[in-house]
Amino acid sequence: MLEIGCGVGGQTVHLARASPEAHITAVGRSPESLAQARARVAAHAPGARVEWYCADLFELPFPDARFDHVFACFVLEHLSDPGRALTALRRLLRPGGTITVIDGDHGSAVFHPDSAYARAAIECQIRLQSAAGGNALIGRQLHPLLTQAGYDGVGVRPYTVYADQTRPALVDGFTRHTFIAMVESVRNDALAAGLMTADDWDRGIRDLYRTAQAGGTFHYTFFKALAVNPSGAATTSSPAL
Amino acid sequence: MLEIGCGVGGQTVHLARASPEAHITAVGRSPESLAQARARVAAHAPGARVEWYCADLFELPFPDARFDHVFACFVLEHLSDPGRALTALRRLLRPGGTITVIDGDHGSAVFHPDSAYARAAIECQIRLQSAAGGNALIGRQLHPLLTQAGYDGVGVRPYTVYADQTRPALVDGFTRHTFIAMVESVRNDALAAGLMTADDWDRGIRDLYRTAQAGGTFHYTFFKALAVNPSGAATTSSPAL
Repeated sequence: MLEIGCGVGGQTVHLARASPEAHITAVGRSPESLAQARARVAAHAPGARVEWYCADLFELPFPDARFDHVFACFVLEHLSDPGRALTALRRLLRPGGTITVIDGDHGSAVFHPDSAYARAAIECQIRLQSAAGGNALIGRQLHPLLTQAGYDGVGVRPYTVYADQTRPALVDGFTRHTFIAMVESVRNDALAAGLMTADDWDRGIRDLYRTAQAGGTFHYTFFKALAVNPSGAATTSSPAL
Repeated sequence: MLEIGCGVGGQTVHLARASPEAHITAVGRSPESLAQARARVAAHAPGARVEWYCADLFELPFPDARFDHVFACFVLEHLSDPGRALTALRRLLRPGGTITVIDGDHGSAVFHPDSAYARAAIECQIRLQSAAGGNALIGRQLHPLLTQAGYDGVGVRPYTVYADQTRPALVDGFTRHTFIAMVESVRNDALAAGLMTADDWDRGIRDLYRTAQAGGTFHYTFFKALAVNPSGAATTSSPAL
């Protein structure tokens, strides 16, 4: 199994635990993150068989048809050409091999109390991610992207997170420490780019935190796609089987 | 069981089939719709025990604590004071009785290809519903509304519709004939109110239909709440038990 964009190994631990017999090849671009990922897997999935590579997605040192499965979680949303990436990954899959792609879509963020300032702060994050070559609205596009990259049997399912005060672990773990933390992390860039004033930004963040308090609600949808590399298809550099 | 806002009986049929032993009291405001609802139930749930009432939600001819369960689907989103309605309905529930509330939230509409014109057309529908005293963004508010109306044990779950070409029945039944049809129905009002030009509106609708074609995707979330009328609580006109 090939994991692309393993980051600090959060998903690698899940993969290793879910498939203890699997041989996992985990690829990341940051040596520092890879070191953290190694330590995390050693601590939380000590028997896992993981090989680590520091490499760019488009320069992977693997032969064609090397893998049974490719896993890419929160990766496509950071790429300027996700279609090209999916095509490159298909080359690494054996015919009949499968790919799992998971991404969010910030357009699905719906919350109470609603706030134009909060929505503007989220819009800053979307625009900055776009300016960096990514796409924070990519979840809705997984089906056409995989289809256009030549995969078969593309199936997409939404995974909706809904948090209110009856689900305190989600309010804390998702609303506060995942979504709002992610928006907050672009404060300096948003202000430097003149996208919002500091006062408006701070009000937007305060309003987002109100959605995590009593009476508040927060909704967000992730999209998970599964697809197959066609058995009979020629890929860029291997013959049809 | 009391069904509020039964319309032409679509949900009444489901309720009667799901609970064939239930005594259902179905309330609507339109005599024409009620006649259709009667005919629909007679055709599709012939053994159902349904009493029909043409009445306003705030002037229901029932004694306090009359019902074990209240069902309100796509009703709150049309009311100017949904909190008052929920309080009035609680009076009709026996202590320990339950309520089910289902509403959508147009803020959750996410689609591909994205289109500013399509989003503007949806925004027209939201503004017109608001001008008529309703709220097309109410799904996210079900938890605080029920809590503030004095219900206990409020639990809300999202039900996400995701349609792409692998789900043709949903593309047709939901994207085209439910969501887009609903937006299209306000064309005259939107143009008369000067919210969009006819050209922009027509482009918005065309763009919405593109999301129902090959390569398009559509996402929408409904919110379903279940809550309990407290056993020990005094209601507006009945003593505490």
